[in-house]
Amino acid sequence: MQVAVITVGDELLVGEITDTNATWLCQRLAEQGASVGRVVTVPDDVDDIAATVADLHDGFDAVVVTGGLGPTHDDVTMAGVAAAFDRSLVEHPDAVAWLDGDSGYSYGDLAAGTADLPEGARCLPNPEGVAPGAVVEGVYVLPGVPDEMKAMFGSIAEEFDGEVSHVETVRADEPESALVDRIDAAQERFDVAVGSYPGETVRLKVRSTDPEAASAAAAWLRERVTRQR
Amino acid sequence: MQVAVITVGDELLVGEITDTNATWLCQRLAEQGASVGRVVTVPDDVDDIAATVADLHDGFDAVVVTGGLGPTHDDVTMAGVAAAFDRSLVEHPDAVAWLDGDSGYSYGDLAAGTADLPEGARCLPNPEGVAPGAVVEGVYVLPGVPDEMKAMFGSIAEEFDGEVSHVETVRADEPESALVDRIDAAQERFDVAVGSYPGETVRLKVRSTDPEAASAAAAWLRERVTRQR
Repeated sequence: MQVAVITVGDELLVGEITDTNATWLCQRLAEQGASVGRVVTVPDDVDDIAATVADLHDGFDAVVVTGGLGPTHDDVTMAGVAAAFDRSLVEHPDAVAWLDGDSGYSYGDLAAGTADLPEGARCLPNPEGVAPGAVVEGVYVLPGVPDEMKAMFGSIAEEFDGEVSHVETVRADEPESALVDRIDAAQERFDVAVGSYPGETVRLKVRSTDPEAASAAAAWLRERVTRQR
Repeated sequence: MQVAVITVGDELLVGEITDTNATWLCQRLAEQGASVGRVVTVPDDVDDIAATVADLHDGFDAVVVTGGLGPTHDDVTMAGVAAAFDRSLVEHPDAVAWLDGDSGYSYGDLAAGTADLPEGARCLPNPEGVAPGAVVEGVYVLPGVPDEMKAMFGSIAEEFDGEVSHVETVRADEPESALVDRIDAAQERFDVAVGSYPGETVRLKVRSTDPEAASAAAAWLRERVTRQR
């Protein structure tokens, strides 16, 4: 399953905060066996959100959007997702029912718009907050507050189940450029992909959906690289 | 100046590392007065890089790309940028001259491909490493190793000079949803944009290219919100 992640927020684009929600979602999606092919950060702007959602919906099996949910004026993610699919934003009966029932809030006391979701969406209750999420045509819309995002992702994680990629790490005390031939050879010999990441020690990450191929390739590489410690 | 940032790397898309290069670039570009409208993370794949560079080059005044430079097999960013503009990747005379001259390396000792840049590119020397950067049609290609990326950005920072946005922060101990009316009023009354960010205390970020408008609006808001500490 090929997935794209969209993180929404002006505060990300001015570097006020680091996008750790993206890191967390990429990790969790990989653990489920989904492959994240793109992460895009967009401003709190209906048109930007709508264009990006429409574009990634065309290219990926699923899209996970986080951030910009809630009743304040700069929370426009639901409007952007609705616009991407030419749907209206409507007071959603399931969101009203959840808010008046299990949410712990009283719908009448909440700001106008709290229950507004794209027409025909599946409502996702928020175990940690007041803003519900939604699913529309394979686009999953989650809050941006990390605890709320994580809890809501937990309720839908199994929808991303796929073949888990197994990763083995091999460390090498050689220049990255000197390792090219052995990396190529390992990739040809085994059904694996090998990435190399520089640092004090070069880390070679051997990936495969076949755990035996990953560990055979890693063992083969370990015998052939220089290791000082 | 509207800028997009592209970060390249499979390790970002599996959540192995957090994209602090994006945060740093967004901060520095904002300090120069440029406005970042999009951050996109792409895999180490020539076609993905080429398509994303071409797309963002159409929509933004400049694009800053970081990551995937160097001679190893998964460093394909230069090939992707070259493909985006239908240019060849060639042994670049300025890169060879820099590597053989000021770089501190000897070109003959380096891995093949170290001096390969898109044809006709401007070569950017790397003050902290061996892989040169490049500029092609407003697309700036920087290394992904943070120290190298930061040093190279320093050499081109002034090319992003623009009107700096001034930001004032106002803290409020009220629910975000209760503040909507005052936020709207401040935006109408002053030439500012106000973003609100939840947390233990709500932070209102007042932005304007006019520093007096930003501080007048912040003062106006501070008088009208509840603050407990």
